[in-house]
Amino acid sequence: MALRARALYDFVSENPGEISLTINELVTLFSEDVVEGWLEGTNSRGETGLFPASYVEILRNSSDSSVNYSGTSGDGYYSAVYTTGTEYCQQTDNLYEDTSNESTPTHSSAYSGQVQQRQIYQTSQGSDDDWDDDWDDNPSAVQEPGIMPARDEDIHSAYSVASSTTARRGSAQQSKGSVSVGKNLNRFSTFVKSGGEAFLLGEASGFVKDGDKLCVIMGQFGPEWQENPYPFTCSIDDPTKQTKFKGMKSYMSYKLTPSHTQNQVNRRYKHFDWLYARLVEKFPVISVPHLPEKQATGRFEEDFISKRRKGLIWWMNHMTSHPVLSRCDVFQHFLTCTDEKSWKQGKRRAEKDELVGANFFLTVSPPAVPLDFQEVENKIDVFKTFTKKMDENLVQVNVTINEFARKQITGFKKEYQRVGQSFRLLSQAFELDQQTYSVRLNHALAYTGDVYESIGDYFAEQPHQDLGPLSDLFVIYQGHLSNFPDIIHVQKGALTKVKDCQSSVDAGISQRCNIISCATLAEIQHFHRTRVRDFKAQMQQYLQQQIAFFQKITGKLEEALHMYDQA
Amino acid sequence: MALRARALYDFVSENPGEISLTINELVTLFSEDVVEGWLEGTNSRGETGLFPASYVEILRNSSDSSVNYSGTSGDGYYSAVYTTGTEYCQQTDNLYEDTSNESTPTHSSAYSGQVQQRQIYQTSQGSDDDWDDDWDDNPSAVQEPGIMPARDEDIHSAYSVASSTTARRGSAQQSKGSVSVGKNLNRFSTFVKSGGEAFLLGEASGFVKDGDKLCVIMGQFGPEWQENPYPFTCSIDDPTKQTKFKGMKSYMSYKLTPSHTQNQVNRRYKHFDWLYARLVEKFPVISVPHLPEKQATGRFEEDFISKRRKGLIWWMNHMTSHPVLSRCDVFQHFLTCTDEKSWKQGKRRAEKDELVGANFFLTVSPPAVPLDFQEVENKIDVFKTFTKKMDENLVQVNVTINEFARKQITGFKKEYQRVGQSFRLLSQAFELDQQTYSVRLNHALAYTGDVYESIGDYFAEQPHQDLGPLSDLFVIYQGHLSNFPDIIHVQKGALTKVKDCQSSVDAGISQRCNIISCATLAEIQHFHRTRVRDFKAQMQQYLQQQIAFFQKITGKLEEALHMYDQA
Repeated sequence: MALRARALYDFVSENPGEISLTINELVTLFSEDVVEGWLEGTNSRGETGLFPASYVEILRNSSDSSVNYSGTSGDGYYSAVYTTGTEYCQQTDNLYEDTSNESTPTHSSAYSGQVQQRQIYQTSQGSDDDWDDDWDDNPSAVQEPGIMPARDEDIHSAYSVASSTTARRGSAQQSKGSVSVGKNLNRFSTFVKSGGEAFLLGEASGFVKDGDKLCVIMGQFGPEWQENPYPFTCSIDDPTKQTKFKGMKSYMSYKLTPSHTQNQVNRRYKHFDWLYARLVEKFPVISVPHLPEKQATGRFEEDFISKRRKGLIWWMNHMTSHPVLSRCDVFQHFLTCTDEKSWKQGKRRAEKDELVGANFFLTVSPPAVPLDFQEVENKIDVFKTFTKKMDENLVQVNVTINEFARKQITGFKKEYQRVGQSFRLLSQAFELDQQTYSVRLNHALAYTGDVYESIGDYFAEQPHQDLGPLSDLFVIYQGHLSNFPDIIHVQKGALTKVKDCQSSVDAGISQRCNIISCATLAEIQHFHRTRVRDFKAQMQQYLQQQIAFFQKITGKLEEALHMYDQA
Repeated sequence: MALRARALYDFVSENPGEISLTINELVTLFSEDVVEGWLEGTNSRGETGLFPASYVEILRNSSDSSVNYSGTSGDGYYSAVYTTGTEYCQQTDNLYEDTSNESTPTHSSAYSGQVQQRQIYQTSQGSDDDWDDDWDDNPSAVQEPGIMPARDEDIHSAYSVASSTTARRGSAQQSKGSVSVGKNLNRFSTFVKSGGEAFLLGEASGFVKDGDKLCVIMGQFGPEWQENPYPFTCSIDDPTKQTKFKGMKSYMSYKLTPSHTQNQVNRRYKHFDWLYARLVEKFPVISVPHLPEKQATGRFEEDFISKRRKGLIWWMNHMTSHPVLSRCDVFQHFLTCTDEKSWKQGKRRAEKDELVGANFFLTVSPPAVPLDFQEVENKIDVFKTFTKKMDENLVQVNVTINEFARKQITGFKKEYQRVGQSFRLLSQAFELDQQTYSVRLNHALAYTGDVYESIGDYFAEQPHQDLGPLSDLFVIYQGHLSNFPDIIHVQKGALTKVKDCQSSVDAGISQRCNIISCATLAEIQHFHRTRVRDFKAQMQQYLQQQIAFFQKITGKLEEALHMYDQA
């Protein structure tokens, strides 16, 4: 009887020699031998080729002994493949999905939109020829759901790390017998994709100049990125509409002025987009801030332009305040390059950068004393809980403040205006009596009516002043929070690998795991610092705005009150 | 062929010898002779008797010559008989009825409730024996709809004065042939009921002491009541629950302390009720403020007690600030009498007062120069328009502010509390990070959450402070406005009668019409003065409350803001 296996998940072939599988499809195996995580066989459509061993279970006579390469808990991990952006939701009584779909389309789409963006960036290393094309004319920007690039992203934005580490542990145990440390069977793991595994196994190599060195120092609260000794900021002015091809094409151009050069450069959203893709590719354990969401239509409308500019300002602030991101070559190139020729040169250089992924870790200098891995693991676990809770709560808070904004713009405004109209109605009735001693009261009543109409307008305008910026802050942090599962994944992958082969591990692996851990903890520390800074500042601004708002109302009411002094 | 007539309106017989008619019913007439406004005939049920000539039209061969005693426009006037309280409504696109029925049950019922009260007062001159009984145990308080006493009230609370004067004009013309001025055919006219007609025709007589004299003086804006030379106020303290018959009966007793005696007296609602009935009976062209509405159940509940006390305070303020009402014997008796024996004596004296209705006018001393009747008519017409507009608009305004109060108590509160909960949610997530530099931010966020919860409570409590008193003011004025159609009716009746018989009129009729006009205009002037005073004061209080409210919010927000100083 032929050896057979059953597909546990859908698998879509990416390369020649691979075959696609559909969940529950039966495959006839050539042998049980797993070669670098792959099995060979024939699927139900008669196609023969390779597929990942972890995607199938081998069927034997006794069902007890069926081998499931995807780990002990088969649910959750890969089942998330086609449910992008609903990971938190599944763990929180569907609150995330329900509420965000109904009430916060903007922010919910910001979140899942970012995920989609990242997928696109990984395929958008266009040639120089299309550099000047409008980004949304680029066919690579059109992404069908379900095609492969989406999968990498989808899998690893999940918080269901436990089951994936179980899967890796299983494969590691399997390879224990061969003494040397085996590779991860899961080609789609962030740990593998990011280069974390390659680095840990000592396979990364590259030439690191002194200028490329990134120091992690031991601070009061643990590892920290060494601060940028030359801190700077960068302003983004209101964009102007530019045209080319004799007006056939138009786009918005942002004026960027970095404080350290004071030289203005003009950049389009697609330039930001390109830069973002480079940064994501280069830095495996750094949370690159998400860009404000794309919008295909209406991108010259005032509201959208203003919203995108605010989003870019947030993005820029997070970039310039990050010790690593702020100093990296491609970002500096983006901020400072003014002529087209050197722009293209810098662009090509960045795209050929060797110190990306695995090689990035080569540039990290850890503190002298290595970390205690148990302590690292505890810290990472605490942070994982933190980000999960923060993400859940941010979603709820965002729903509430958006609803509050909506109520102020509609309901509150209407109520105050109706009260204003009432006072005017009274004044209109009273005006039918024109005796001198009534006239001033009539005026005062009419004025009070106007004041309440104004207060209605204030309520409608206010959310743009206070709740809007608060919501912007939440969106940028939701972006960061969606980065951290990947970052945690890389660190956890390294730690698991070290733990699994403690007896046979060489000192180099421990050192390299220490580097990954230092970089991860430094990034986490940076996140907390920035979070406290940003939330403090934004809450202060929010409260100041609210105070100013209620004072403005009070002032208006006092004006109305004075009208009665002479009545 | 028998002479026949068709009933234009329903008529319900009140006395022996009268027959009832249904609208459109055919009646066989004995003759065309109208005797003091009455015709005799047999209705369709074979009953024979008298009915008002103005209720039928005599049918002749040619329809052109049919006699309609009820005036040229047959619609509107009597058709209002069974639509108590909807008079304004019919003239204003049903706005009054619709809105008050749906959204302001309290105030709409206050309005129509008052009308019902007045009907009751006219039948509630109970014996001394039931003086100590609880008012709501008094069977005379139970009034079935549609029985006769309602009619008088219903007809004359209408603003459709034009058609009723037309009816009277018709009857006056009819009686011209008899040289002397005829009586009004409409037995139900306020003009007749109030004694206005009797006084005008010189039929009123009574002994008027100097102390009873009420002077109307000529002020800057026309006739005015002479001010009370001894003005006073009267406080009403929180009522206490009293029992009698060994606890079998209980009632609320209010402590009244008039400023001119400083002697406290105890009064129950039924005493106010009795006083009110005396005043309405006594003063035909004075707007006696309405008492706060009755409530049969729950009258010991705190909310109701507090609401009634506020209503009684308003009532008392309008009483004491009225130059005529504040001085009248029965009110002074009410305010000052402390022992039961003299109370009963004063009560009997008041109920036997001869200077009521028609005789009230005997007590009025007009200014030396008589008024120009054309000018009086213009002023009255302007005032009629004014009261109609003010009533319409008050109804709308009351709907709005009650809705606004409801929104603050429910929606606004909920929104601010949800925002408060959001900030607490954020703080709860952040508390998972216990690094020292986070702790203060966490506290500040939690505190901000508390502050927004408090603001929610403030919004819920505020309407009791500002919108409530405003609504109380509107209710007392809605009561006044419902009095004025009757008052205008009396004056218009007098003026119409004088105009209709100008050639044959004696000088006495003109003088007496002048007295009625002076009293009416003085009352209108008093209304305007009080209105300007009350609305000014209440709007000031409202705005002061609103300012204090928003300042309180601002203060709370400042507290929250300070929490971030050290964060």
